[in-house]
Parts: sequence; structure tokens; C-alpha cells
Amino acid sequence: MSEKNPDEILAEAKAWWTTEIIDIHPGEIAIRGYAIQDLIGKVGFAQMVWLMLRGELPSAAQGKLLEACLVASVDHGPHAPSIAVARIAATTGIALNNVMASAVNVLGDVHGGAGQQCMELLEAIKADPKSGTDLPGAVDDALGAFVAAHGKIIPGFGHRWHKIDPRCAPILALVEEARAGGHVGGGYVAIGRQVEAGIKRRTGKDIPMNVDGVTAVVFCELGFAPPLGRGLFVLARSVGILSHAWEEISKGSRMKGPMPKSIPYSYAGKPPRKPV
Amino acid sequence: MSEKNPDEILAEAKAWWTTEIIDIHPGEIAIRGYAIQDLIGKVGFAQMVWLMLRGELPSAAQGKLLEACLVASVDHGPHAPSIAVARIAATTGIALNNVMASAVNVLGDVHGGAGQQCMELLEAIKADPKSGTDLPGAVDDALGAFVAAHGKIIPGFGHRWHKIDPRCAPILALVEEARAGGHVGGGYVAIGRQVEAGIKRRTGKDIPMNVDGVTAVVFCELGFAPPLGRGLFVLARSVGILSHAWEEISKGSRMKGPMPKSIPYSYAGKPPRKPV
Amino acid sequence: MSEKNPDEILAEAKAWWTTEIIDIHPGEIAIRGYAIQDLIGKVGFAQMVWLMLRGELPSAAQGKLLEACLVASVDHGPHAPSIAVARIAATTGIALNNVMASAVNVLGDVHGGAGQQCMELLEAIKADPKSGTDLPGAVDDALGAFVAAHGKIIPGFGHRWHKIDPRCAPILALVEEARAGGHVGGGYVAIGRQVEAGIKRRTGKDIPMNVDGVTAVVFCELGFAPPLGRGLFVLARSVGILSHAWEEISKGSRMKGPMPKSIPYSYAGKPPRKPV
Amino acid sequence: MSEKNPDEILAEAKAWWTTEIIDIHPGEIAIRGYAIQDLIGKVGFAQMVWLMLRGELPSAAQGKLLEACLVASVDHGPHAPSIAVARIAATTGIALNNVMASAVNVLGDVHGGAGQQCMELLEAIKADPKSGTDLPGAVDDALGAFVAAHGKIIPGFGHRWHKIDPRCAPILALVEEARAGGHVGGGYVAIGRQVEAGIKRRTGKDIPMNVDGVTAVVFCELGFAPPLGRGLFVLARSVGILSHAWEEISKGSRMKGPMPKSIPYSYAGKPPRKPV
Repeated sequence: MSEKNPDEILAEAKAWWTTEIIDIHPGEIAIRGYAIQDLIGKVGFAQMVWLMLRGELPSAAQGKLLEACLVASVDHGPHAPSIAVARIAATTGIALNNVMASAVNVLGDVHGGAGQQCMELLEAIKADPKSGTDLPGAVDDALGAFVAAHGKIIPGFGHRWHKIDPRCAPILALVEEARAGGHVGGGYVAIGRQVEAGIKRRTGKDIPMNVDGVTAVVFCELGFAPPLGRGLFVLARSVGILSHAWEEISKGSRMKGPMPKSIPYSYAGKPPRKPV
Repeated sequence: MSEKNPDEILAEAKAWWTTEIIDIHPGEIAIRGYAIQDLIGKVGFAQMVWLMLRGELPSAAQGKLLEACLVASVDHGPHAPSIAVARIAATTGIALNNVMASAVNVLGDVHGGAGQQCMELLEAIKADPKSGTDLPGAVDDALGAFVAAHGKIIPGFGHRWHKIDPRCAPILALVEEARAGGHVGGGYVAIGRQVEAGIKRRTGKDIPMNVDGVTAVVFCELGFAPPLGRGLFVLARSVGILSHAWEEISKGSRMKGPMPKSIPYSYAGKPPRKPV
Repeated sequence: MSEKNPDEILAEAKAWWTTEIIDIHPGEIAIRGYAIQDLIGKVGFAQMVWLMLRGELPSAAQGKLLEACLVASVDHGPHAPSIAVARIAATTGIALNNVMASAVNVLGDVHGGAGQQCMELLEAIKADPKSGTDLPGAVDDALGAFVAAHGKIIPGFGHRWHKIDPRCAPILALVEEARAGGHVGGGYVAIGRQVEAGIKRRTGKDIPMNVDGVTAVVFCELGFAPPLGRGLFVLARSVGILSHAWEEISKGSRMKGPMPKSIPYSYAGKPPRKPV
Repeated sequence: MSEKNPDEILAEAKAWWTTEIIDIHPGEIAIRGYAIQDLIGKVGFAQMVWLMLRGELPSAAQGKLLEACLVASVDHGPHAPSIAVARIAATTGIALNNVMASAVNVLGDVHGGAGQQCMELLEAIKADPKSGTDLPGAVDDALGAFVAAHGKIIPGFGHRWHKIDPRCAPILALVEEARAGGHVGGGYVAIGRQVEAGIKRRTGKDIPMNVDGVTAVVFCELGFAPPLGRGLFVLARSVGILSHAWEEISKGSRMKGPMPKSIPYSYAGKPPRKPV
């Protein structure tokens, strides 16, 4: 290290936080090259999400598909872990950004990661050369490998509350519209449908795509990398998290436990004893 | 507690997580009374934010103003604490939702709370009966009280980077358009302008509204409660947080410190010693 | 900025993260001047907490009091918001450090801040010149001011589960022992007792110190600043958070809601409707 | 669900948060069967950590080893991502528990997970039947498998700052003392040493155990499950996080970026352009 001169060190420091996202000078803010005043009022919030993440503005058709997925994912009720955490956290005297952080934090592999995992599965099938000539075979191979590695729950398929997830049909209709208009290729829809068929072949059961599966299909069609599937879900679910936290705060709840006091927890540990 | 019977306790438990936001049954999801399939593809993301938080769909004019504020607030570069935290966190092997949580968490009173504080100030002025007949006097009183309680930095006014914040003019133009169309009252714009004048009277300096001030004006015009000023900012800045984290992850950075290794920190503590 | 030369800028950068806590060189780590190898195995964990925060090693008596407070505060069961959050978070597929973060985050003003607030109250009474000659009067003044500003719940006094908090007597006995040995002054114990008396004068009720009040007394006796009351509580409760999270993980729980599925939440919002 | 009667549902609800850790009744708190008043002042903080996590009190020798590991891991300076995050977060107006949450959250696989990963490696070697008769062979197999799956960095071995990590020798001396006294078996020390030898065989380089490796050895000797390796590290590093945050708060820092303002970040994105 000692061999660098001050100018070299300063250049390294200046480069340390290099970004292609935003350029700021006094009185000027440019996002991906666009002056902020050229975006405000002209570009929608979903389009802005795209621009920030992808570096270019989406076409109208792309923006519409992304927006539909964000709208579909905002909430699934107070029994979901993230929302339960938000509502509990909102009663402990912390600010809304802190409440949102505690809740967003639990959108982990099991809770908020299904979309990302589903995208990885769809991409793995797509990348298998066999998929071009024998998609069912490629799907069966991929499902077999997935189950061997991760267990029998296929992310993006099946829902513990909904036999048919009501968020799927409207999104798939939008994808079909975009495909018909030549805005997306539609290959991932075919893969998703074939995964449903493959699950049926494996299990004999109808386990259709859920909202994570359908949005995974869309995000793949739109060219998002799988980790951004989780990122986009977090942006969407943050709306539900904020709304439920605010509802609890508006009630003035204070130190709210997970169940009412009239239902105590049960203790199943050691009987009373003394240290020796 | 022991005097409640099982049915009463169960009713209490069922009511424990009561919500007016979402109703879910197998195959059915309704947000604020609207079936989710009637919203997907028809309602924009910003409108969905409004519906979730407020209980009703916004008018087109309301939705446009909210959307402009969200777009304006997505990012202010990697030196902002939240973005720096996101980029550092992204190199430690945690998932994107965890990165976002650590970063959203620092949008506290000093970093993400200016909008909320500014809204509280604007509402206090509005609520002062004097404001109807002597707005400058009401503003001077409110500024005096604020400075006495919190110090001389007035949230929402002045910016350490920008003499003129380039995000303000386009938003204020949209508010003026909405006011001319009868969609908002415009009273908070007048208050905001008068606060600028009041600061000039106090300090002799031109310290104009910044993006927090302008969005505070809009959120007040739209009827949001002050804590939601922070909540909406968190939703917007989450986009920047996600984008910067993703840029860092895409580079494969690992255990990135705040400055390059060629710049060590300095130690200013006790000289070497031994425990006695 | 442009007028600084490279050496000045580098010196500023080097100073940016100045610390008095730790000095590190290849093969050498010194904490507050002590080589780490002189501390490992010789200094207890509670003493290390003290050294890190205060800059000096505690006396044996000081270390013992701090340790007793840490031990007393590790847990108060799964219905406390922080522990409920930890147990829910532990079922969402995030790592233990993320679980702990979500839970620690909710130790806010209402949940984990009582100790800090109580310390501030005790220090305010101590700082009142009147307290030297008329402690009851100083306490009554401070309680009156506190209730006017914050409402009738006095932090550190009274407990919604325990009429007598079983953690108090053993800690107070240790303080008395330390006072008798000349290791602490005991002034804050007298203030705490007088606050109990003052609450009785105000309300007619016996509302004794709880664990937050007793540890606040100890931390004041030991010279900790009030915000560290919260910090020390976080260190202690992190043990409970980790333990409950681990118990849930050990069971293999997955996506655990706040109540069993057999108890649905109730919906109290708008009836079904259509967007116009 | 509808077939359960109210008593069954209530029993299910009562069991929902079952724990073996803590039993609470008015005026009574028992941890793992021990009344809290029998623990305060009699049991050290490290012993309490053990009791909470393991269900039994440790022997003196076990407690001493755990305590040494906790002491060794409290801090490694402000350039570590967790500490940098803590110090930045401390300047944004959030409370200490929130600061600690943001920082603890980044102790992920890359930053705080090395101990856990090292424990998994040590346990895998231990579980290999070959290790009884041919430990070098078992180690070579495990290292080969690990490198194939995860890359060439072996968690717990080598340090980017220290050729010899000064925290290792004193901990290994304590383990040897415990082994000589018959308090631990010592098998994991032998495995750890053999991993050093195996790395040398693979790479030709001396890459000795670092603090994560040594504490992994101790935690395995003490019978902790690998995920608790991370959990214990979080408890220890929380002390450093708190201390650095407090140092920054004590200075009154406000909105501190990662580098001083005299070093701007560099922009490497698109040149100025207009939306079409």
C-alpha cells in the first residue's frame, strides 16, 4: 500500500463508490443520464423502478407488465410473517422506517424468496439445451434435480390458502396480450405451464402457479436477473407492510403481543430447580 | 382473564389482528373491498399505494401528484448514509431483502424524517387560527417555536449539496396545475412559500424548499398524515437502495469497507498498556 | 473543497473514521490500549463490555453489578414483542443474525427504552439543586413535569405482569452490598425509592420499581449515560432473542403466523365493490 | 379447520408459542427451571448465555471457554462492514437499538458466517468414518469437496489483515488447559490443526486458523450446533457495534457519509440525454 502516491490513493478513493446510476452536481441530479426534472411528472413510479435497476427506460408494454406485478404483490394479510412483524413492531415505539426494516428483513428464502427461486428454476430449464426440442423432458430433469436438492415444495407453484391464486389469471392475460403484440417472447410462460404439467406428472396433483410463479414468469420475460425477483417483491410488499403498520399505529396499540393476553403461552421445560 | 369463556376468548383472538385493508378467502383476495383481479393491470403502482394507505382509490390528479413525489425521491447518490449502508451491506453475503432492511432502517429523523417534520410544521401553521389573517405572523411564531425546540435547521428547507434543488420546480409546477384544475386547495404551497420568506426574515438568507419540503407540501395538500411522509419516502428511497445494492452485488464486491484499504483509519486512544 | 491539497485530503480521510476504541496492525489488536491476548481468558464478558464502552476496566464490584443487570434482562417470554418477532422471523428462512436484527430493532421507546427514560428521569432529579435539601419536592416536580410531557406511565415503575418484579430485590441487595463496601454512592437508590414514594403520593398506589427501574438505578450509580441504558438492555435481551429464535428453528417451523391457522383474523373493512 | 371445537382451538393457540426456555407467572420468572433471583448475582453473563441456549448451566471450565471466545470477538475496527454501518447509522437520528439492528444484520455469510461455516466443515470431517483412522485423508477429502462447492477461501483460516491472528494463541492455550483437565475432548483442535496442514498440502502456503476458526474449534468442543456459532459471534460483535455507535453519537456526528465530502464518488454511467 505504501507505494501508492497521494494522487493514486485519492483516485482510488474517488473510484471506491463509483456508480453508473446517478450523477450529482450542485443544482443537478441525473439518473442514468436523464435530468431528474425531465423524469418527474413524465415517468411513472414503476417505470422509474425499471430505469434505476436496468439503466434504460422501459417500453410502455414492459412498464405495464412490471407495474401489474408490483400491484399484485402488495399484501397478503396480517397472518403473513412480514405483516405480523410489521404490526407488532408498530406498537413498540419505533419509527415507520424502523418498522418497515424489521418486516422487510423477514422476506427471506421461505417468505419472500420464492419468486427468485422460481426464476432460477425457469432460467435453468431455459438454459438446458434439451428444452428446445424436449421441453417436458427438460422440465422433468430440472424438477428432479430441484427436489433432490431442496425438497418437494416447488417455489412459485401451489398456495396454502388458495387452490387457484386469483392474482394469476389477470397477470397471465397481460403477458398474453404483450406476447400477441410482440413485446415479450412468451417462452417463459410455456416453461411455467410445462412445470405445472411436470408437477402433475410427478405427483398426480394439480398444483398451479401462484403469484410468485406468475411474477417470476413475467420478470424472466422482461429480462430481470433472479435476485431482482426478490428485490421487486420487497418493493411491492413494502406497501403492505407500511399500510398495516400504519393501521396499527392509528389505533394507538402499545406493546402488542402475538395473541391476546387471555391466551397465555404454554411452558414445556424443566420443572423448578435450584443451581447447585 | 379466567372469567372469559372459550367462545369469548376465541372472539377476542379473532379480533386481535382485525384489519380494514384486506380480506382473504380461498381463491379470493380483496383490497379495501376491490377484488385483486379488478386492480391488476387497471390501477398503477402509485395508485395502489394510495388505496392501501387511504382506503379509497385516488383521482387521476391525486395519483399523478403522489407518483411525481415518489419518482423524485428514489435516490441521492452513494454518499447518502442509507445508500452507503446498502452498498456496504451488499458485500457481506446477506440477501437483498436484508440489505434493504439495514438501509431503510437508517432513514431516521435526521436522514429520512425531514419530510415528516416539515409536514408537522406546515400542519402546525395551518392549525394556528392566526394563519387565516396573518400568515407571516403565524409562520414567524411557528419558526420561533421550532428553532427553540429543535435548533436552527428547518426540515424541508435548504440542502447541503444544492443551492436550488432541481426536484422542486417540476413538482411545484404539477401542484400549480392541480390547483388550477381545482384538484388541490393550494394552501400548503402558500404556507411553504411563506416559510421560505420567514426564514429569510430570520436569517437574511435565501434558503429555499428542498425535495423534502416540496413533497411535504404535496403530501399535506393530498391529506396524508405526517408520519406517512416518512413512510412514502421510505417506499421511494427503497428503489435507490435496491438499485445501488444490486450494482454492488453485480460487481461481486466482498467485505467492502467504507474507504479503500490504502486509507487506514486513525487511532486516537490510549497508548499500549497492561491490565493490572 | 478544491483548495485542499492531496495530502490534506488524505489526512482528512484518514481521520474520518478515527476511534479511541481499537488499534489494529498486522498481528496486533489492542482494545483501549490493552493487547487482546492480555484480555482473553483474563477478563470476563461483562467486564469487556465495560472496557469497550467506558475506556477503562471496571473494578470487580463495578463489573459484578453490571453483570447482574445483564443477567436479569435476558428474557421475558415469547409474548414480548421482540421475542414474538424473533420467533416469527426464525421461520422465514433468514439467518440468525437477520432474525436478531429484526427483533433488536423493535426494542424501541415503548419496549426497550424504559431504562433509558428512567435514567433520564433519575438524572434530572439528581441535577435539580433542590434534590440536595428536599428530595421529595424535587421528585414531585420531576414527576409532574414528566407526566405533563409524556403521560402517566412512569418508565421503570410498575409492571403489567408482576405486582412485585422478582428481578428487583436481588439487584438492590447487590447495590446495597456495593454501597456498604464504598464501591457506589447509593444516591440513585435513594432517588428511585423516593420516586416510588412520589408515585404513591400522586396516585395513592404502590407501583414499585421494575427491572428497568432497578437497572436504571444501577447504571446511573455506575456512571453510564442514559442512552447506554438502552444499549446494555439490547445486549442482554439479544440473548433471549437468540435463544427463542434457535428454539423455533430447532423445531423446523416454517412461515409461522402469529396465531394458529384455526384462528383467522377478522376483516372489518369495506364490503365488496368495483372500481369505477 | 371447522371441525375443531373451541376448547381444542384454544389448546392449540396456547401451544402455539410453547417454550422450554422461560416460565412466567405474576411475581415469578423461571429460566430453564431456575428462579431468576437464584441466578442474578450468582451466575455470570456468559454462563447465562449458555443456560439460555443449552438448557443447563455450564461447568466452570465450559463457561470460561465460552467467555474467552466472546471476549475475543467483540471488535475488529471501523473498517469492518458491520462497524462502518453502525457508525454511519449512528449519525442518522435513529435510536441505539436501531443502529445495532442495521449493523448486526450485515453479519452475513461473508462477514459473520465464517465461524458457522467452519463448524460445519469441522463437523463434516468429524462425521466422516475415515477420520478415525486417516484424519489427513478425511481432511483432504473435505477440503476438496468444500473448494469445489464454495471456492478456495476456507472459512476460519487466513486473515486479510493478520498473518498470525493474535486472538488464536490465547484461546488455544485455554482449550489445551481444558483438555488437560479433562473438560473437553480436544478432537476438534486436532481436526483444526490438520485442516491447516491440509491447506498447506493443497496450496503450499501457511494459512493458519483465524479467530473464526479457533472459536469454531471451541464451540464444537463445547457441543454447540453450527448456526449458534454465528449467533454467539453476533452477541460478541454487538458489543463492538454498540461501542462504535456510541463513540460516533458522542461526537454529535450528523449524516456522515462513508468518506469525507472532499472525496466525491465518481460517476461512470450514461452521458446526459433526454427521454424520447
